[in-house]
Amino acid sequence: MSDVSAVKAALKSQVIETPSWGYGNSGTRFKVFAQSGVPRDPFEKLADAAQVHACTGVAPKVSLHIPWDRVEDYAALTRYAEELGLRIGAINSNVFQDDDFKLGSVTHPDPKVRRKATDHLLECVDIMDATGSPDLKLWFSDGTNYPGQDDISGRQDRLAEALTEVYERLGDDQRMLLEYKLFEPAFYTTDVPDWGTSYAHCLKLGPKAQVVVDTGHHAPGTNIEFIVAFLLREGKLGAFDFNSRFYADDDLMAGAADPFQLFRIMHEVVKNGGLETETNVNFMLDQCHNIEAKIPAVIRSVTNVQEATAKALLIDAEALTEAQRSGDVLASNGVLMDAFNTDVRPLLADVREELGLARDPFAAYLASGNQERIAADRVGGEQAGWGA
Amino acid sequence: MSDVSAVKAALKSQVIETPSWGYGNSGTRFKVFAQSGVPRDPFEKLADAAQVHACTGVAPKVSLHIPWDRVEDYAALTRYAEELGLRIGAINSNVFQDDDFKLGSVTHPDPKVRRKATDHLLECVDIMDATGSPDLKLWFSDGTNYPGQDDISGRQDRLAEALTEVYERLGDDQRMLLEYKLFEPAFYTTDVPDWGTSYAHCLKLGPKAQVVVDTGHHAPGTNIEFIVAFLLREGKLGAFDFNSRFYADDDLMAGAADPFQLFRIMHEVVKNGGLETETNVNFMLDQCHNIEAKIPAVIRSVTNVQEATAKALLIDAEALTEAQRSGDVLASNGVLMDAFNTDVRPLLADVREELGLARDPFAAYLASGNQERIAADRVGGEQAGWGA
Amino acid sequence: MSDVSAVKAALKSQVIETPSWGYGNSGTRFKVFAQSGVPRDPFEKLADAAQVHACTGVAPKVSLHIPWDRVEDYAALTRYAEELGLRIGAINSNVFQDDDFKLGSVTHPDPKVRRKATDHLLECVDIMDATGSPDLKLWFSDGTNYPGQDDISGRQDRLAEALTEVYERLGDDQRMLLEYKLFEPAFYTTDVPDWGTSYAHCLKLGPKAQVVVDTGHHAPGTNIEFIVAFLLREGKLGAFDFNSRFYADDDLMAGAADPFQLFRIMHEVVKNGGLETETNVNFMLDQCHNIEAKIPAVIRSVTNVQEATAKALLIDAEALTEAQRSGDVLASNGVLMDAFNTDVRPLLADVREELGLARDPFAAYLASGNQERIAADRVGGEQAGWGA
Amino acid sequence: MSDVSAVKAALKSQVIETPSWGYGNSGTRFKVFAQSGVPRDPFEKLADAAQVHACTGVAPKVSLHIPWDRVEDYAALTRYAEELGLRIGAINSNVFQDDDFKLGSVTHPDPKVRRKATDHLLECVDIMDATGSPDLKLWFSDGTNYPGQDDISGRQDRLAEALTEVYERLGDDQRMLLEYKLFEPAFYTTDVPDWGTSYAHCLKLGPKAQVVVDTGHHAPGTNIEFIVAFLLREGKLGAFDFNSRFYADDDLMAGAADPFQLFRIMHEVVKNGGLETETNVNFMLDQCHNIEAKIPAVIRSVTNVQEATAKALLIDAEALTEAQRSGDVLASNGVLMDAFNTDVRPLLADVREELGLARDPFAAYLASGNQERIAADRVGGEQAGWGA
Repeated sequence: MSDVSAVKAALKSQVIETPSWGYGNSGTRFKVFAQSGVPRDPFEKLADAAQVHACTGVAPKVSLHIPWDRVEDYAALTRYAEELGLRIGAINSNVFQDDDFKLGSVTHPDPKVRRKATDHLLECVDIMDATGSPDLKLWFSDGTNYPGQDDISGRQDRLAEALTEVYERLGDDQRMLLEYKLFEPAFYTTDVPDWGTSYAHCLKLGPKAQVVVDTGHHAPGTNIEFIVAFLLREGKLGAFDFNSRFYADDDLMAGAADPFQLFRIMHEVVKNGGLETETNVNFMLDQCHNIEAKIPAVIRSVTNVQEATAKALLIDAEALTEAQRSGDVLASNGVLMDAFNTDVRPLLADVREELGLARDPFAAYLASGNQERIAADRVGGEQAGWGA
Repeated sequence: MSDVSAVKAALKSQVIETPSWGYGNSGTRFKVFAQSGVPRDPFEKLADAAQVHACTGVAPKVSLHIPWDRVEDYAALTRYAEELGLRIGAINSNVFQDDDFKLGSVTHPDPKVRRKATDHLLECVDIMDATGSPDLKLWFSDGTNYPGQDDISGRQDRLAEALTEVYERLGDDQRMLLEYKLFEPAFYTTDVPDWGTSYAHCLKLGPKAQVVVDTGHHAPGTNIEFIVAFLLREGKLGAFDFNSRFYADDDLMAGAADPFQLFRIMHEVVKNGGLETETNVNFMLDQCHNIEAKIPAVIRSVTNVQEATAKALLIDAEALTEAQRSGDVLASNGVLMDAFNTDVRPLLADVREELGLARDPFAAYLASGNQERIAADRVGGEQAGWGA
Repeated sequence: MSDVSAVKAALKSQVIETPSWGYGNSGTRFKVFAQSGVPRDPFEKLADAAQVHACTGVAPKVSLHIPWDRVEDYAALTRYAEELGLRIGAINSNVFQDDDFKLGSVTHPDPKVRRKATDHLLECVDIMDATGSPDLKLWFSDGTNYPGQDDISGRQDRLAEALTEVYERLGDDQRMLLEYKLFEPAFYTTDVPDWGTSYAHCLKLGPKAQVVVDTGHHAPGTNIEFIVAFLLREGKLGAFDFNSRFYADDDLMAGAADPFQLFRIMHEVVKNGGLETETNVNFMLDQCHNIEAKIPAVIRSVTNVQEATAKALLIDAEALTEAQRSGDVLASNGVLMDAFNTDVRPLLADVREELGLARDPFAAYLASGNQERIAADRVGGEQAGWGA
Repeated sequence: MSDVSAVKAALKSQVIETPSWGYGNSGTRFKVFAQSGVPRDPFEKLADAAQVHACTGVAPKVSLHIPWDRVEDYAALTRYAEELGLRIGAINSNVFQDDDFKLGSVTHPDPKVRRKATDHLLECVDIMDATGSPDLKLWFSDGTNYPGQDDISGRQDRLAEALTEVYERLGDDQRMLLEYKLFEPAFYTTDVPDWGTSYAHCLKLGPKAQVVVDTGHHAPGTNIEFIVAFLLREGKLGAFDFNSRFYADDDLMAGAADPFQLFRIMHEVVKNGGLETETNVNFMLDQCHNIEAKIPAVIRSVTNVQEATAKALLIDAEALTEAQRSGDVLASNGVLMDAFNTDVRPLLADVREELGLARDPFAAYLASGNQERIAADRVGGEQAGWGA
């Protein structure tokens, strides 16, 4: 895209959704280190998300996680979001922390537990109705730890049954986003371990079911941009969960571990129409900030995604196609690298300025005094975290 | 399966197909070490395969690779196979060694190269007609080495086009088996990198297209038995390419690197009906023997597959289901491990004796004098290998 | 070792140390599922360990973890262990759960935090003095999550300084065991990520410092038995932490994920003198039981290690050496596989019978009524777990 | 380094050594695709290396590989190099293509083969004497494919014996560089699989033995910059073999697969004194160009290393240290990312201009007409490749 104003327009229209749980405390199995100023309820999480949006201008949507974000009055929560200039994004159904779910949720061997889990998913659709959320995002920790522990194909049957019931409950403007993950917390089999499994289920469910690509959920060496290109070609890419990792963990800031990979992914998005509004790809962050300050970390993640997008938009598509057609390996690679090697921070600063924002959202946030404010204000109560 | 006679009957009816190229010279990019007595033509490869069948009783089929196994008169080759008690198995189309295929075959940017590649696939169907082979096995080395080198989704379009043309050429009793591989020889993208990609293409092509699971072609940590169970549930598992690996190489003897994995795979096969004749899973070996003697190595691979199958057949299915239903993790794992820990070599020796064979096929081969005979006889000419 | 009585004697003399924390509650970052009957203090943990020893006859030692197992009176704890027929094994210093340790312990940028961490290690040596423990086992979660976060070589300086201070505090019969781990909970760098780092530090420290090989702490594809053989050759293998894994998690029961690997490891142990008393290798379990019953899971882990050891002892060493010397790849591999394919459960049952134990320790434990007893007795109080 | 002139001076003084074999034909085990204009002898390889140096100004050294680069008259070859403005770099001993080396070279079970292999290494020292090469670079393909195939610790004894003999033959200004590689072509064990093994041997040999870090030779997830920092701290980093990879292959252009990793590596080099002349780190490329034009690919690799170096030099070291000391995770990471996100191509163009070179070496080479010239001239004869 050689036209700078078109690039800017695309960058202005991109929406990056941030996750409510990313503002709460999180950690590893070894320790959750609490931070000062962390929200104590979903309303405070929204307030934090509003800070990110205020600084970046592209993060007006917030994903909720149920049961963590259960409130008495979803209308009130939705109104509060609107007052903050936000809207409710995906509703995530977390069916992994109830004691009943030790051996699975919708794939549990016991039909009573499956019923309970499916009911939880249906409750999430109710919350979509109540909040105007368009996306039901399903990730299941279901799986097994030991060979023989349960019946792999039997669990697929149970999964299909639950998904079908929930799919049929969806309204016309609601969709189901099915996430896959190689492993963790299940250590031997995971019931939706890869994009193929998610794709196969979505295909049978129908057009309202699409795949979520979480960038941290793959085996070492997996080419994620291939999957992105493939799913876009099939019309089955529903959303991203952006984050990054060096090993098997998956919750570092997006773009922190491999910015070149994020660029290659965004190149496939741009090339295959994934930035178009009608394609309706939800660009979500899904990460936690165990040792770094949370709101600034989300801001940096947003700008990292923006930088990768900007570089992808700057690729000279004509030159690339020409080099590819002629089989010139070095020239075609060179076209891509030219865009990657460009420093897009000035361009993004201009975009922000044109939107009436500070040129550097990270610095602007630090200077805003918000961090000190929430640290002072949010004293007492129970900090939000996993399980709260 | 608690009934020993049923276990024996299942073991007697299993057919393991051996690959013609496994009898020729092979190696790594560093060096191909030639061995004495290696076949010089497809007829001699069949003679070697006949030795394996004579010793094991379960290997009457041989996969051919085209162009390596091109002959003037396929009827003569087929007759020779029959005289040896063999029949022709899968026809493998090798479209990776012609200079034109440097940047791909059916996904090459140049339509002339694609035409040439597709014509080669169609020739393979002709050879199926001529030899009675039921299976066209497609593996493509197609892919790219560098980001930007070619258009990922464009290559999928070209792949789909070629597959469709070939699929339509298939006769009623012929099927297409589409293999996937994570990487190598392509180092950045591979056009059919995982089971999901193969599955998605097969689904569109129709019922005669099925997926091949090569046990060596996955990213580290991939749960292969999950894929096997999933594909059997979908009716889309066409065949195995058995081999094993410790790292990213994929051509050690089946069962040599991880016999427990092979057992878990065979458990899913047995449990999900994959041993039934009507399921029509082709149990192929696909491996090379770079530093070890070839015919004995194929014999050991065959017996390794048999041992894994025997153990899988010995699993107490009722006890397993009972333990799984009750959520007893240790008991269900224990049922599986009991079967794995059983020494099935005596059982398999009995099976062979009942078939009129020696109890130990490996020892029988070594004692047969064949190795010395072929080393003495096969002097001069060009030894078969990759490219010959 | 062809002499069955020698094999039995070796199996009788092997000691497998079990970890106190393995009897407590544990889980993943997603959820810790509590179990009934879990110990509430170090004394109850010892009681559980005594059950394992009573059933297996080879588990008389228990590793403690400080601060989890801090007690007022270590002499009383030690006496209680002796009354149960146990003795205190390694003292593990856990310096990862204090809020001060968010960015590291002995490698933390702040010298005050380093002092606190080193003092904790010194306290562990005091506990060794008080309990008669011979081994100080050091594992550090220290590392960084993001590139640039801290100075890699500066952290090595700090690590060396702390280790030296602690090493000098050790008594004549005490040693330091330094564990390495690829990643987790640090996600970018870990300060002791591999055996080479541990080895280099131990070499400088002196003969009382040795390396711990935790079988779950390696990158995919790492050949662990090579490391074992190498360290034994160098006299630097101090201990094992046995557990297993399919992916990057590391706490499944030993031998559960890859029994063939455990066998190969034990083969190197046997071959390189690692079973000899004077080599002084500590065979520890280090694993948790998130969804399975804990005491039975430890029993199975112990028997899995025993089975791997028994198979390794059964290898025909002469035949192996002969085949290796002659360069016969298939014959030498065959000697190894013959031992692996042997069902050693009857042999181990005989060994137990000769020790006056039940032939099947797992069944014996289930029949003992202990599980029901502790579930009934241990009501109220706070169950032990990570952090308690 | 905030002083631009100091950065430029450092960039001008960096020397990147290119490998003679990189100019010849290469490929995978599937196929070697020949290219036109490829050198037919070591003299023509030097001529190609001179082209790279002429365009980049920083590549005056060329590694030779023996036996591929054996010539009658090494003095003549050395003179020819000097006439081209080059000098001979490392001598690589290739002991993997003789039929005798099927089961190993210096670790082979047969002492006659070991003698032959060691003699080859000693010949390489003779060639160092004759050419003025300062570095003997040792990489061994030695290892095994199957468990049991050979004695792991016995092979270490043999390795140590050969290395010692060769080490003692080295002159005062010659050193031994010992490379490690996880796997390939050996598929089960490799005799020098990791940096720890290489380090342990080098330590025993003495100060003239140092470790080579080949960036493509690690298990997935290995933190290479940690190893670099550790070895520099120990004074044991002798050289790099730069290349890159996405999976397990290791011969793509340096910086092509993960430019951020290359930057992190160069950051540790810069920070730990690795760019200082007296540290004497040899920055070699070691890669092949299977499908892309070779000389331009080497040029791009050189400029990729330069770009990573330039970015590393631009890191604000004071700000980084300050942020690290204060434990500010986001700030310290931000300092690093600021440098990485900088477009250093203009700076490098200035450096080249100051050296009297074209600003864009890649374009300059394409415009030079050399590629057409060698394609026209080098007709007939046998193209250089692996084995020639």
